[in-house]
Amino acid sequence: MTRKFPIFKSSFLFSYLIIILLQLLYSVVDGRLLSLSKPQPNDAAAYARWLVSQNSWGVLKNVVSFSDGPPGKGAGVPYFYLTTLDPTAANALKDQRSSLTVSEYPIGTCGKTDPENPTCAKITLTGKLKLVDVDSKEAEFARSALFAKHPEMKDWPESHNFQVFKLEIEDIFLINWFGGPKPLTVNQYLHWKMHKMGISL
Amino acid sequence: MTRKFPIFKSSFLFSYLIIILLQLLYSVVDGRLLSLSKPQPNDAAAYARWLVSQNSWGVLKNVVSFSDGPPGKGAGVPYFYLTTLDPTAANALKDQRSSLTVSEYPIGTCGKTDPENPTCAKITLTGKLKLVDVDSKEAEFARSALFAKHPEMKDWPESHNFQVFKLEIEDIFLINWFGGPKPLTVNQYLHWKMHKMGISL
Repeated sequence: MTRKFPIFKSSFLFSYLIIILLQLLYSVVDGRLLSLSKPQPNDAAAYARWLVSQNSWGVLKNVVSFSDGPPGKGAGVPYFYLTTLDPTAANALKDQRSSLTVSEYPIGTCGKTDPENPTCAKITLTGKLKLVDVDSKEAEFARSALFAKHPEMKDWPESHNFQVFKLEIEDIFLINWFGGPKPLTVNQYLHWKMHKMGISL
Repeated sequence: MTRKFPIFKSSFLFSYLIIILLQLLYSVVDGRLLSLSKPQPNDAAAYARWLVSQNSWGVLKNVVSFSDGPPGKGAGVPYFYLTTLDPTAANALKDQRSSLTVSEYPIGTCGKTDPENPTCAKITLTGKLKLVDVDSKEAEFARSALFAKHPEMKDWPESHNFQVFKLEIEDIFLINWFGGPKPLTVNQYLHWKMHKMGISL
């Protein structure tokens, strides 16, 4: 009996250490995800959200800057800071139908893979480009989202009357692997929880 | 008189040296242009051609790779290597109207300037996306243009039936400075001589 307790104690200690080691390992993997990894191609919602949050510009009729939230707080909805001196915003006020296209290539995670190769992802969000009410809570969030990723916007000339727009997403076209576009609903995209991945953007 | 000749000779020598120095300076500037400089914003045709030749991908409904020629031999017309398995090519065969949008930002010459800032250039070439006859001289040029900038294309699966397309440009929208889009005709764009700039791309 005098022996059994130490054995029990040491195996208990051993299991405990294994658990701690596993937790450490997990947090290391988790830590790596924080800065390097991209989601698995079969997790379409995660991939789409990562692609949008990592990029800060795309094509919306013209080349525009956008932000879906302050770093680490991306909500998936792209916000824009546009002036009606530019045709993109001027046209949007007449016909809201728009699509935003973003490539994985400029993020730098495609390596030497060609931008057109399906494993170098691309996403097109189609919907309506809408003016956000300047006094709303949403405009406040959008401005903090935009200014965090585009610091010079704060100093853009007041006389140009820059206003916050958002893309109300109606359809998503994502290619991030062989085999054609990934089925991905707007709902799946918008309600995918970024923190599940442990990704801080 | 014995003095005048040496004076004449030395001033002649001086002018000659100045000319040689200027030529040297020019070739140095020229040399620098080869790898670093971008054209002056007020030279719209040069800027547009530089922007298209320096980039190897853009947005044509989706993110696609393109090439306007082998490095240093860009002719301004973007060629594509597309499969009808992808909606871009499939749609083009039904409705040729297309536009290719390209940003200066990924070239790296915008520095810390925001991608939406008008001094970070963007160009949209609008026109018709046309299939290039596979046996034509043009298809031969297009393939060498594409494969030079996108080496992996050579190995893309034959079963996918990649074909050469080109954008027949009808209209150009270029922003490369404050003050709105630059007036630039298709003719000015196509007949601008790259070698005038001494730019080897």
